[in-house]
Amino acid sequence: MRATVMYGAGDVRIEIVPDARLIEPTDALVTVARAAICGSDLWPYKTMERSDNGRRMGHEFVGVVEAVGTDVQTVKAGDVVVSPFLWSDGTCVFCQEGLQTECLHGGRYGSDDVDGGQGEAVRVPQADGTLVVLPVGADDALMPSLLTLSDVMGTGHHAAVVADVRPGKTVAVVGDGAVGLCGVIAAKRLGAERIILLGSHPDRIALGTEFGATDIVSERGDEAVERVHELTHGLGAHSVLECVGLEESTLTALQIARPGGAVGRVGLPQEDSVPDAIATFFRNVTIGGGPAPARAYMEELLPDVLEGTIEPGRVFDRSVPLDEVPDGYRAMNEREAIKVLIEL
Amino acid sequence: MRATVMYGAGDVRIEIVPDARLIEPTDALVTVARAAICGSDLWPYKTMERSDNGRRMGHEFVGVVEAVGTDVQTVKAGDVVVSPFLWSDGTCVFCQEGLQTECLHGGRYGSDDVDGGQGEAVRVPQADGTLVVLPVGADDALMPSLLTLSDVMGTGHHAAVVADVRPGKTVAVVGDGAVGLCGVIAAKRLGAERIILLGSHPDRIALGTEFGATDIVSERGDEAVERVHELTHGLGAHSVLECVGLEESTLTALQIARPGGAVGRVGLPQEDSVPDAIATFFRNVTIGGGPAPARAYMEELLPDVLEGTIEPGRVFDRSVPLDEVPDGYRAMNEREAIKVLIEL
Repeated sequence: MRATVMYGAGDVRIEIVPDARLIEPTDALVTVARAAICGSDLWPYKTMERSDNGRRMGHEFVGVVEAVGTDVQTVKAGDVVVSPFLWSDGTCVFCQEGLQTECLHGGRYGSDDVDGGQGEAVRVPQADGTLVVLPVGADDALMPSLLTLSDVMGTGHHAAVVADVRPGKTVAVVGDGAVGLCGVIAAKRLGAERIILLGSHPDRIALGTEFGATDIVSERGDEAVERVHELTHGLGAHSVLECVGLEESTLTALQIARPGGAVGRVGLPQEDSVPDAIATFFRNVTIGGGPAPARAYMEELLPDVLEGTIEPGRVFDRSVPLDEVPDGYRAMNEREAIKVLIEL
Repeated sequence: MRATVMYGAGDVRIEIVPDARLIEPTDALVTVARAAICGSDLWPYKTMERSDNGRRMGHEFVGVVEAVGTDVQTVKAGDVVVSPFLWSDGTCVFCQEGLQTECLHGGRYGSDDVDGGQGEAVRVPQADGTLVVLPVGADDALMPSLLTLSDVMGTGHHAAVVADVRPGKTVAVVGDGAVGLCGVIAAKRLGAERIILLGSHPDRIALGTEFGATDIVSERGDEAVERVHELTHGLGAHSVLECVGLEESTLTALQIARPGGAVGRVGLPQEDSVPDAIATFFRNVTIGGGPAPARAYMEELLPDVLEGTIEPGRVFDRSVPLDEVPDGYRAMNEREAIKVLIEL
């Protein structure tokens, strides 16, 4: 079968790899219908050292179950399914707490014997705990939005949950990438009265406004902080969604949080310390977040996608067939595209 | 009147200062019955640069209202009252949210025209918002415990609240000082099943055990982390109370938090960054906290003190008259005493 393999920074290839197949009795074999390129895929695209073996890519996909192992009970051949970006057993202590990213028997796609999502098929371990059956056909118009439940929409939602977004509150979203835009959707869905989007790309800002952003701040650093304070009577935002992960964006997120407020960080942190620890202490600002337990959020978000109440699939502004995935990486890396959908 | 004045590191004096008096119509004049030396008073005691004017000290006190300004409605002469460590109006947006430490019209004791608590009397601004009337006499045996509501018990409780302590959960308390010990009380009061106290002073550990600590970890650094993981089946603690503020203790607190857990920090941070940002991100650990809104917690904690359900006053293991306050500072600084009560 064909699949995406990265051999080093900037070097993404579509290659013939061994066919995905069932190995464990808890596996499902899924034929991929749609996949995506993730903002986090751009980190290795920028920095990966050359590898002779390459690295299988992709962790966001929807598809059709081809076959299941003998122990699988909740999905069957023919089911249209979505997978979160990590697989998990659904039964361990962390899964039961809704933190499937810490599943004691879970893992990542694209490592060891588990295929990546950017390919024709995937062996999905722990299928019962991992997959969610979708009540639509594999070619449904909702597929792009359903696909976002695997990662980007769940991630924006996670930032909003950790930042304690509540009805009537003021929310700031740092970053106008696909995650930030899904953060805007999540904040509006959770009832935020005011949503300040910090970003400077006209097309992304336009989409953010359609998603519910009420104010745009295009400045950066100290000027952005000043502008948010102007917009909030000097108080700051109750909830801040940090959707970038750089030190500057993290500092901005902390500085625009209102005293007693919370920052939900979902941007992959590029520094090993959180800045501004003394000022945030004196203002009682909380910071939390991390990889989103996308599996935990699927049941909550799925009805809204099916009803069309939220349309996170609009973050995909480019579609490519599998053979053109390398150009999809290039386009996202050069910010030609917000997020790239792969149609198989 | 007599009051405590600090002139530099290690230089604390009892001096005659101008009598406390009413200035604003919202003031109360309070004769101090009991005051305390705070762990945070030890920071200037260790580091303050020499000052010709000196600095009035103290922010924890209970006493008797002597007189009130014309606008004061909720307290009257003769009332026995406790003050939180900051004064606040009780009506601003932050006070209404229960974050009186951010009161838009509040402030600190011992600055400008406001007396410090370690003296014979105090002008209390915003008396209606600040003071809580106590239904006991000024010489009641409960006075030491009631005094802790002004700061140390509220601070331990704040750490527990921010760390999301809940019934049945495992809690770790980093630091066996007076705040850490009150954190143990707070954790037990909120229903924690297991309370691991990290500390190494035999007398403090003994008191912590009486307060409800179920396990003691006397190691530090990596060894402490390892020990807590042994005690928690490798998972860590759901809630961690950071009651020290040093970089090492903060790192320990973060590293012993269970994935998805929370750290409540109330130790004054000595570094301007929070360490271990990447590992805590991947484990979805939250960190929050800051100065405790002690005023907000008084109503909740007061009944338990009055009923004797909690006895935070036991953290006072030494009492001194006002004239011996300088020796009280020395004793706390040299760890001869956990916390010093001042009897006027």
